[in-house]
Amino acid sequence: MSQDQDNLGKIRQRIDALDGQIMELISQRADCAQEVARIKRDEDPEAEFYRPDREAQVLRRIHSENPGPLDAEEMARLFREIMSACLALEQQLEVAYLGPEGTFTQAAALKHFGHSVQTRAMTAIEEVFREVESGSAHYGVVPIENSTEGVVTHTLDRFMQSPLVICGEVELRIHHQLLSHATDLGDIQKVYSHQQSLAQCREWLDSRLSQAERLSLASNAEAAKQAAKDPQSAAIASAAAAQLYGLNILASNIEDSPDNTTRFLVIGPRASGPSGQDKTSLLISAHNRPGSLHGLLSPFAAHDVSLTRIESRPSHCVNWEYVFFIDIEGHCQDAKVAAALSELRAQADLVRVLGSYPKAVL
Amino acid sequence: MSQDQDNLGKIRQRIDALDGQIMELISQRADCAQEVARIKRDEDPEAEFYRPDREAQVLRRIHSENPGPLDAEEMARLFREIMSACLALEQQLEVAYLGPEGTFTQAAALKHFGHSVQTRAMTAIEEVFREVESGSAHYGVVPIENSTEGVVTHTLDRFMQSPLVICGEVELRIHHQLLSHATDLGDIQKVYSHQQSLAQCREWLDSRLSQAERLSLASNAEAAKQAAKDPQSAAIASAAAAQLYGLNILASNIEDSPDNTTRFLVIGPRASGPSGQDKTSLLISAHNRPGSLHGLLSPFAAHDVSLTRIESRPSHCVNWEYVFFIDIEGHCQDAKVAAALSELRAQADLVRVLGSYPKAVL
Repeated sequence: MSQDQDNLGKIRQRIDALDGQIMELISQRADCAQEVARIKRDEDPEAEFYRPDREAQVLRRIHSENPGPLDAEEMARLFREIMSACLALEQQLEVAYLGPEGTFTQAAALKHFGHSVQTRAMTAIEEVFREVESGSAHYGVVPIENSTEGVVTHTLDRFMQSPLVICGEVELRIHHQLLSHATDLGDIQKVYSHQQSLAQCREWLDSRLSQAERLSLASNAEAAKQAAKDPQSAAIASAAAAQLYGLNILASNIEDSPDNTTRFLVIGPRASGPSGQDKTSLLISAHNRPGSLHGLLSPFAAHDVSLTRIESRPSHCVNWEYVFFIDIEGHCQDAKVAAALSELRAQADLVRVLGSYPKAVL
Repeated sequence: MSQDQDNLGKIRQRIDALDGQIMELISQRADCAQEVARIKRDEDPEAEFYRPDREAQVLRRIHSENPGPLDAEEMARLFREIMSACLALEQQLEVAYLGPEGTFTQAAALKHFGHSVQTRAMTAIEEVFREVESGSAHYGVVPIENSTEGVVTHTLDRFMQSPLVICGEVELRIHHQLLSHATDLGDIQKVYSHQQSLAQCREWLDSRLSQAERLSLASNAEAAKQAAKDPQSAAIASAAAAQLYGLNILASNIEDSPDNTTRFLVIGPRASGPSGQDKTSLLISAHNRPGSLHGLLSPFAAHDVSLTRIESRPSHCVNWEYVFFIDIEGHCQDAKVAAALSELRAQADLVRVLGSYPKAVL
């Protein structure tokens, strides 16, 4: 025991010494960040200090070189906070997101920017765009592919009338929790959730809660609200919703597929530079000629550019009937992407680069 | 420009090198934490890994030795997160707090424990106590002196029937914001808030919003909810409430006194060891004899123990009429505190040490 106490004392001394060194190095890092800011400000008094490409590179390196025992996501989270603190020395970033508080979009904003920024909840995607367009916020975070709603078409549509660009994407692993005031699964008569969440947990519900009726509501937050009113009911929703509505988490991570993610976009006034692993989102339209889509896509094939997503949306403008939102691999400054885009421009009525940005660092 | 670009490149290389070293040291720290846990588990398979006294010592040192340019609070925040991540390797702490989400109590819980713990919102102080008493949560966080409610008597009262002890305190600087859907102060006809918040912002309101009627409501959250319904009204509430109800922050930090803090207690099943700068909270009662309070306090004076707070509360038990909640400087294991307590026990009908715990690290 006394030997153990002795050992504990020694390890604590070692931790104290490590803490001193960590603090010293973080402080040197903050000095460097101030030096970078000074140089940038000399070049351009309006310079932006937030560089999504550079931050993505730092986080990727942390991810790949993390030696353990902390897992790579936790280590990346700590570096996100260190970068956030260093950046706040130079510039207090204001980030608008689709609220209310406690939603995945807020979690995405904090995951991307760290806790040293000011976040502000907006009540609609439209408002997030307006806050950033008017300069009231530096950046905005909006959902684009939401596992409970599919593709968020309102975000896509809003890009048609906005000068903003996409300067980042965030992916969150989404876990579903079974929330209730009840403490026993056997007491649950009804399960509320958005239909997609019910679908994502179907196998679990079949095996563990087969007696309960399933009712689909407009959102998981609404489901949690309903479940809070009736102790014989439960909701499938997030841990954040459990907090918000004071419900117990009766069962955790009940989604059938363990890799359920959802995707958000960071929007801002300025394009991001290449980070080495980037995506480009495009808005393309052409007259509604048969075969036009196939024709539009051929430059990508010709230049070996991979498409990762394509969505068609009815246009709200008069001159064309459809617009396509296309995500491709690479940055618009990459040679083969630039070549494909230049061919595409010769064929399409409209080609807008919505943004080239670093791929999400999970 | 090219010289600047060159310099920027060099500084970024330096940042990359620093990041590598920081990651290496944090990883070594996590290794040490695992080693501490292994030794403790060998001694006692049920060992607790969270040590409030030790964490307070680490944070105090960080605070006092922080070299800048980051401010000491921001540096302490980063270390709180590093410790939180290291602790989570050993034990996933569950922390219950008085909800809902977005309240100061949640902010206090995250400030104290970092973001690697699970926090759960409860709807009442009573429930926070019950969660921790039943072992469903490891710790609880409850308000004790709230600038919008004064002393939180319900928390004091609940200690009379609880075996839990106080193992920490958290102080938060409270800032008041003026929230509204309006964008111009001139449009505001009504200001809602809790009466104490209205009082704390009286001078600001007199000079900047003299035209507006002031209406006091049960809580600042309720005020924000009301203000959200009427664009000619505003609420005095927190930035978190602005997020929650989607309101603009029309004016920031409008409190008349710049050092407005509020205090929370961390409650748990086990006492904390001495950290060198501690407080002790006591529950004391005596029959209602004239002069009994004066007599009760004399052992503290005799042993040079400072009282920092005293509150009397009507007792809900039959044997005495009043109980006193007293905070003193020092840990109950300190010689002079122990001597004072032993004298006190000879005089009072009841002396309960509610806890000795590290003073809040701001």
